[in-house]
Amino acid sequence: MCFNITHKDRPTCDICASHQRDGQVLCVVEEPLDVFAIEKTAGYNGFYHVLHGVLSPIEGIGPEDLKIKELLERLQAHKFSEVILATNPSMEGDATALYLHEIITPLNIRVTRLARGLPVGGDLEYADQNTLLRALIGRERLE
Amino acid sequence: MCFNITHKDRPTCDICASHQRDGQVLCVVEEPLDVFAIEKTAGYNGFYHVLHGVLSPIEGIGPEDLKIKELLERLQAHKFSEVILATNPSMEGDATALYLHEIITPLNIRVTRLARGLPVGGDLEYADQNTLLRALIGRERLE
Repeated sequence: MCFNITHKDRPTCDICASHQRDGQVLCVVEEPLDVFAIEKTAGYNGFYHVLHGVLSPIEGIGPEDLKIKELLERLQAHKFSEVILATNPSMEGDATALYLHEIITPLNIRVTRLARGLPVGGDLEYADQNTLLRALIGRERLE
Repeated sequence: MCFNITHKDRPTCDICASHQRDGQVLCVVEEPLDVFAIEKTAGYNGFYHVLHGVLSPIEGIGPEDLKIKELLERLQAHKFSEVILATNPSMEGDATALYLHEIITPLNIRVTRLARGLPVGGDLEYADQNTLLRALIGRERLE
């Protein structure tokens, strides 16, 4: 269902089959490895949808090569209140997120994107310019 | 004035002396190198204040060892509308930002902090758990 990999003879993976997860949130990632990375943080309890790639006009990968049709069908069949676009913070990842945002918007679901900024434990003067710029633009108000 | 380094026989550095800068915003950094890092992004046009270190109880560095008294004097003398705490995203940097936030709050100035999250151009599965967790918690709504 989520297109994550599973080693059992089941129609769904362990996460999809779980009744302990928050059925309101769907996290869209590029690869099955991203599911494991997010699971390891223990900070997310919703479901996943694996695209199995990103849009890449140069490599000839279009929406029909990814699990986007299946994502839309899933969003129409199940009432999610939020879709987190967790594609990589790269050019292709950003383009894919932009595309998904556009096609999900008419469905009236809250669409979010992972935050950009300084990595935890890093050093300001070793951050690349783009990251520092994003951290500046996205600065948060302290209350 | 800002405690940045300057190689000229001047009382202020080039940035402090400039009339082209936005006098409303003050960016507090740890070291002079951080000033150069932020200047290189070309995304900031306000003034700076260099602390020359961070709070570190283990190394015996307290508020009186940093340019914090001078920062408060500056904030009282000049009407800034925003103070950006751009200390490093490390334990000491966070502790220093927390301390500064507390002592600046009574002055009624908007206090902000550089955003945390995924570095630009990075790969989700190679981000450390803490960074990914911060990126998840701080996710932004797309409009």
